[in-house]
Amino acid sequence: MYYIGIDLGGTNIAAGIVEEKGKIICKKSIPTLAYRPTDEIVADMAKLIGMLIEKGGISTSEIKSIGIGCPGTIDIENGVVIYSNNIPMKHYPMAEKLCEWTGLQVYIDNDANCAALGEYAVYGEGVSSFMLITLGTGVGGGLILNGSIYHGFNGAAAEPGHMTIVSGGEECSCGKRGCWEAYASATALIRLTKEAMKKNPQSLMNKIAAENDRVTGKTVFDAVLENDGAAQAVLSNYIRYLADGIVNVENMLQPEIIAIGGGVSHAGETLFAPVREYVRKYGFNKYLKKAKIVSAKLGNDAGIVGAALLNL
Amino acid sequence: MYYIGIDLGGTNIAAGIVEEKGKIICKKSIPTLAYRPTDEIVADMAKLIGMLIEKGGISTSEIKSIGIGCPGTIDIENGVVIYSNNIPMKHYPMAEKLCEWTGLQVYIDNDANCAALGEYAVYGEGVSSFMLITLGTGVGGGLILNGSIYHGFNGAAAEPGHMTIVSGGEECSCGKRGCWEAYASATALIRLTKEAMKKNPQSLMNKIAAENDRVTGKTVFDAVLENDGAAQAVLSNYIRYLADGIVNVENMLQPEIIAIGGGVSHAGETLFAPVREYVRKYGFNKYLKKAKIVSAKLGNDAGIVGAALLNL
Repeated sequence: MYYIGIDLGGTNIAAGIVEEKGKIICKKSIPTLAYRPTDEIVADMAKLIGMLIEKGGISTSEIKSIGIGCPGTIDIENGVVIYSNNIPMKHYPMAEKLCEWTGLQVYIDNDANCAALGEYAVYGEGVSSFMLITLGTGVGGGLILNGSIYHGFNGAAAEPGHMTIVSGGEECSCGKRGCWEAYASATALIRLTKEAMKKNPQSLMNKIAAENDRVTGKTVFDAVLENDGAAQAVLSNYIRYLADGIVNVENMLQPEIIAIGGGVSHAGETLFAPVREYVRKYGFNKYLKKAKIVSAKLGNDAGIVGAALLNL
Repeated sequence: MYYIGIDLGGTNIAAGIVEEKGKIICKKSIPTLAYRPTDEIVADMAKLIGMLIEKGGISTSEIKSIGIGCPGTIDIENGVVIYSNNIPMKHYPMAEKLCEWTGLQVYIDNDANCAALGEYAVYGEGVSSFMLITLGTGVGGGLILNGSIYHGFNGAAAEPGHMTIVSGGEECSCGKRGCWEAYASATALIRLTKEAMKKNPQSLMNKIAAENDRVTGKTVFDAVLENDGAAQAVLSNYIRYLADGIVNVENMLQPEIIAIGGGVSHAGETLFAPVREYVRKYGFNKYLKKAKIVSAKLGNDAGIVGAALLNL
């Protein structure tokens, strides 16, 4: 049997046919066009599934279920999107609507939770606790305990990006101050980079940004490779913020694996080595095994894989 | 059947006979005298159990098992205290030793985890996720998921007190900076109070502290009751730190109940009402049910009850 996974994003609807172990056998994406009636988006999701089935050369009878990873607050029991900002929705019965189009069982969960489940699938069996943290525009994540997404009692867990790590600090888009997201996201890294560029006009970061016509999450890493002092200071600051949050996750939950994904994670060992060192030094657990801190593997496919596996 | 629960502290060994539902039928405590050979402490634990059985008027055959709540790092699988600072121990096989004395099955877990399990027991069945946070000399806590202590993959969870909430802030006894414990413990509240007393010699806090010959966690609350402005500022600052950490717990885990215990919690609604308001306002979850934030009920008995129930 196969499973359809849909990663519903503000820009694109990405979908794939997925095998039981999490392997994508084919995938395809279409634009979301988020600001149209949601019924039209769902109709396009149904069309996309039709195209996938054709592309994959399988029949509908070989598909066990559909899963959707959706941004926002989800009532997973009832398959309802309670609220989403990126794709404007309020109390929208998405699972029911897509089931009407396809005749298949539809599962839905938060997109970050699906990504976590997808990454978990590639780390295989036997991992009792797994946390994915994604460093992108925001800081997202999901917690997998004993093979299942941990939702808390109300379905709203886990939101590691909105832990306070600097009480009273930078304002976050969520309305609170000092969230991890405001210090450890790619957006935050770009802010820290821009601040340092202003203070250090001689820094290589300015030259690199000018060559690329903009500051990105990569600017500081490129300058660090050339031993730029101001860039090294930015990075070491960023790493402390990032690692403080990872220590928080570890001290609270002691997951067996903490996987870091999202754009910033592509910096590789320049980022991972000092983060691991900080966590090793400052994690509260000094006498027992420590979490493995690894790079997420699936990139943008994680959401598709996790959504597909929602009913397993 | 009955269960023996032992709360092994740096000062006292407190023990009780506990019924299946968590009711203590009799209890007794003796001094720990922590800096003697641990074998002697265990011998006294066995004597204490004998005294309890006599006091309770039951026979040994009515006791199903013994549980010990112990400070430090515990290997719960093997009943070994890997490391404890308060009662100096390293790789001490406590469960086996007490079993030799009593002939009964002995379970052992971290003391804060036992307290969490004890408080959970009094909140009854049907609560899928429960977090205890204790505001004492430090900030401790434990997480109960589906009726069992959550240990993480290595046994070291949960240590909410060592989440960073002020990156780079006050030094904590754990070696890291900015831990929640360094801002939300009774010790931290006393530090904040002393700092404000120095800056505001006219504040009522100085008068109250002089009358009591010392500053305690209660000093600021007593002054707030008399509308002392400097005290109100200390309290509002403390409440932000405390509530920031509670929001962290909520955003990560969405437990159904968050119980707050320890000395500071005795301040009651002067503390709880603004904490609830802050969490309501700044918690990331705006559309789903919210955690209940309640006062812990068992006080010092929580450890005994939880230890007793370790094998349930």
